[in-house]
Amino acid sequence: MNENILGIVAGVLTSVSMIPQLIKVLKEKNVDDISWVMLLVLISGLSLWVWYGIVKDELPIILSNSFAVCMNISLLICYTIYKK
Amino acid sequence: MNENILGIVAGVLTSVSMIPQLIKVLKEKNVDDISWVMLLVLISGLSLWVWYGIVKDELPIILSNSFAVCMNISLLICYTIYKK
Repeated sequence: MNENILGIVAGVLTSVSMIPQLIKVLKEKNVDDISWVMLLVLISGLSLWVWYGIVKDELPIILSNSFAVCMNISLLICYTIYKK
Repeated sequence: MNENILGIVAGVLTSVSMIPQLIKVLKEKNVDDISWVMLLVLISGLSLWVWYGIVKDELPIILSNSFAVCMNISLLICYTIYKK
């Protein structure tokens, strides 16, 4: 299989799996079970993956991790809004 | 920065962020909030990332995604054990 197609399919699957978490938080307006420290660690790690993708010039890595950064920044924003 | 070190740091950060979820499930023995469909989608996606890493011969991608596959298979096993 073409490695770019492989990377894009992999990226779509791992990206899609994050959507339900955001929908759940938006629906239930409840972030009690989410740790902001972990969100920050995850956002840092994903940002480094984007950087890695840029250094290696690999589009699937850049795209899927950028999407994941956006999802987790949205979660972090929800966290600051809904936190009791 | 050396791109391998960059990838390893990125992989460690994104891997570490998954540990609290597994600990939480093991402690609370509660998987009501977890969707097994999403776990399966995520495991498929992460496995493809491992394959991508093998094709591209990139160790940071292989290692961090293999770790993530193990974490999520553990979660899936917990799911089958604790599901009411």
